[in-house]
Amino acid sequence: MVKKRIYLNAFDMNCAGHQSPGLWSHPDDRSSTYKDAEYWTHTAQVLEKGCFDAIFLADVLGTYDVYQGSRDPAVRQGAQVPVNDPAFVVPIMAQVTKHLGFGLTASTSYEHPYTFARRMSTLDHLTKGRIGWNVVTSYLNSAALNIGLDKQISHDNRYDIADEYMDVVYKLWEASWEDDAVIVDKVKGIYTDPSKVHDIEHDGSYYKVPGAHLCEPSPQRTPVIFQAGASSRGRKFAVRHAELVFIGATTMESAKKTVQDFREEAIRAGRKPEEIKILTLITPIVAPTQEEAEAKYDDYKKYASYEGALSLVGGWTGLNLDELDPKEKIQYVNNDAIQSALKSYTEFTVEEVAEFVGVGGLGPVIVGSPTTVANSLEEWVEVTGVDGFNIAYAITPGTFEDFVEYVIPILQERGLVRKSYEEGTFRKNLFGNDYLNEHHPARQHRNSRLPV
Amino acid sequence: MVKKRIYLNAFDMNCAGHQSPGLWSHPDDRSSTYKDAEYWTHTAQVLEKGCFDAIFLADVLGTYDVYQGSRDPAVRQGAQVPVNDPAFVVPIMAQVTKHLGFGLTASTSYEHPYTFARRMSTLDHLTKGRIGWNVVTSYLNSAALNIGLDKQISHDNRYDIADEYMDVVYKLWEASWEDDAVIVDKVKGIYTDPSKVHDIEHDGSYYKVPGAHLCEPSPQRTPVIFQAGASSRGRKFAVRHAELVFIGATTMESAKKTVQDFREEAIRAGRKPEEIKILTLITPIVAPTQEEAEAKYDDYKKYASYEGALSLVGGWTGLNLDELDPKEKIQYVNNDAIQSALKSYTEFTVEEVAEFVGVGGLGPVIVGSPTTVANSLEEWVEVTGVDGFNIAYAITPGTFEDFVEYVIPILQERGLVRKSYEEGTFRKNLFGNDYLNEHHPARQHRNSRLPV
Repeated sequence: MVKKRIYLNAFDMNCAGHQSPGLWSHPDDRSSTYKDAEYWTHTAQVLEKGCFDAIFLADVLGTYDVYQGSRDPAVRQGAQVPVNDPAFVVPIMAQVTKHLGFGLTASTSYEHPYTFARRMSTLDHLTKGRIGWNVVTSYLNSAALNIGLDKQISHDNRYDIADEYMDVVYKLWEASWEDDAVIVDKVKGIYTDPSKVHDIEHDGSYYKVPGAHLCEPSPQRTPVIFQAGASSRGRKFAVRHAELVFIGATTMESAKKTVQDFREEAIRAGRKPEEIKILTLITPIVAPTQEEAEAKYDDYKKYASYEGALSLVGGWTGLNLDELDPKEKIQYVNNDAIQSALKSYTEFTVEEVAEFVGVGGLGPVIVGSPTTVANSLEEWVEVTGVDGFNIAYAITPGTFEDFVEYVIPILQERGLVRKSYEEGTFRKNLFGNDYLNEHHPARQHRNSRLPV
Repeated sequence: MVKKRIYLNAFDMNCAGHQSPGLWSHPDDRSSTYKDAEYWTHTAQVLEKGCFDAIFLADVLGTYDVYQGSRDPAVRQGAQVPVNDPAFVVPIMAQVTKHLGFGLTASTSYEHPYTFARRMSTLDHLTKGRIGWNVVTSYLNSAALNIGLDKQISHDNRYDIADEYMDVVYKLWEASWEDDAVIVDKVKGIYTDPSKVHDIEHDGSYYKVPGAHLCEPSPQRTPVIFQAGASSRGRKFAVRHAELVFIGATTMESAKKTVQDFREEAIRAGRKPEEIKILTLITPIVAPTQEEAEAKYDDYKKYASYEGALSLVGGWTGLNLDELDPKEKIQYVNNDAIQSALKSYTEFTVEEVAEFVGVGGLGPVIVGSPTTVANSLEEWVEVTGVDGFNIAYAITPGTFEDFVEYVIPILQERGLVRKSYEEGTFRKNLFGNDYLNEHHPARQHRNSRLPV
């Protein structure tokens, strides 16, 4: 049996700490320099050295204020606040790399699709086809309030709006400008053939966009679509649109079930299994020997923040765990709209959840020597059927540096990770083609409007 | 009398042609490579070599569709379409320069102030305090339609909304996070002191933003405010907010009157004359000798596009000049809401306007030897009272390269342009201080809420 290539994303965010609340206080952590271009150029170069497929940038537009009914614990612990816009570090990283892909989180709830489509086309041009978009609908009530809503739009309705949002941006990206519309004919003095630029005439329930896209076709047209929806409505959205899917399972058993369910639903939705790569969140802690790795983990745990962890959990689940006794076990509430992270925490005590989240956030930690970690990743792939990993940091860039130095060479030796990149766009590196395939909904829009 | 320093901006846009429609077809023009990072890194480096204060990036979110009642002429001639988002080239240029400022055009009509404030704070962080914001309210009906409006919001109402928009972003930038809120105390494990992060509690006619800013204070807090409003309502807005003002006068006489009127109105509004720099648009065409410069201008004129020029004029004035005979003189319509550019064209024929706009757009062209151009700029400053120039290109980067090679050394020799930059933020280089001064409306918000 030919071994499957393991896809690797680095998971980061334009803030301190990200998935390891409190570890910004570790002497070796540089995440509090997120404001500086130097942090991003260095990290991108480390990842490209390790042949990572992409760096995936999470984002929130609000503050975690469920725990203790206040944002103060999150602010005090720097738990994803302050948080800068992730989009602007992409062109900076693109300038010092040639192949690394970029997965940018952006919400369908807070920007009009017409202006958003231009942002992504611009980034796809500037990165020469290396942009991906992690589609989120936003879950923090605090964000909704600050853009003038009385409260967050309901969960399922957010996805209905998002489905139409996708239709609008797909039409702009795929069905507005023909491939040969822009000719820049200096002799005839024709920049663009106007007969090859088409109005999209979108007139829907939530959006009206009569006109044409503002940008000429970019290398990938539609960015690589990332999605992490885990509720049943979110999964329905993901199987329709996504090319890369992120899951956050705490155990191999739960990851395996999630992968199986997802693949079955994707097939029912008319997608082919190989068209969607599923990556699971993991935080590797690696050192030359097992003992050193375990000592490193013990050291990291000292810096993890209890209230920072429970602040994040509050935002993810909607539950204020300050109302429970730290030794009390969490009960699962069968509410599909609540972030599915909650399922993972059922039957654990508040203290155990805080410890689990304190290093590695939503995902598990793998601790060990280079060979142990490589073996463990290989086992995860074999047992669960995931296509790869979304690598979070305990400290940054240390976790990424360690992984690239110690684990990548072993995975490369085993033929599981590339030793060099192919040329071309991000999608081409993932799937072999620059554009989405013909039966993806984005290309369906294209086929219905443009000559093929 | 000590000579006044001349302030210099380069005027560009994330598209081909910009203010010289059709000149993308000149063999030496590279504006059709606007999609590539290399165009921007090269241009930025040329400008920094010439000690320019800033590069100013124009923008539109629509297509020019008034001329001939169609967007086709603009599309065919590449007249500011296709057009990419200007914001993403800023971090790219910042990475290859140390001092150049960036004036980014962004509209108050199409993005919520809460998310926009984060974008600008992020850019101010990444550029280490070199961001400026050219505040526009958007004038193209085609843009309004595509974000779902039935028609453009009326001119004066757009400015009312913009005034409140400014209040919201000022509160977020100036009055939400105290200077010493973020302490990153690794020993105590405190990232931010929550008692120093304040909700802005904005509850206005157009916006409700109860919460705090998402970003920690950036080097300048509020970006340097650029404005180009020329109508009476626009000027009222500019004298209240602006630090750099752009005018587009076709003659020294009209520039002088505009400067005088503006300064008087600014004083009445409580601003000090030296707090607002006024720059006028100009396109310099320079070569080692007068004859060579004139030959260069004649050559450029051959590539100017008649229908491209009239497409731009259609957008700027709201008038479809295709309805007039090319030899007919344009009559001034006394409609304050129509772009004031129209005033300049009154009493010229359609053909003359097309020729004027064809090279240099809204502003005049200065053609000559290095000394002639330097003398002419000096005369403009003396006669009109402007503080400097917004330099547009006929071809790019050629016009900028010529100016830096031939004219800058003469201006430096005369003590009118710096020979090197001072250290510090964009505002510090312009005005000597990182933050807005205490009586600017932005700082008034600060003073009312934070300890001073």
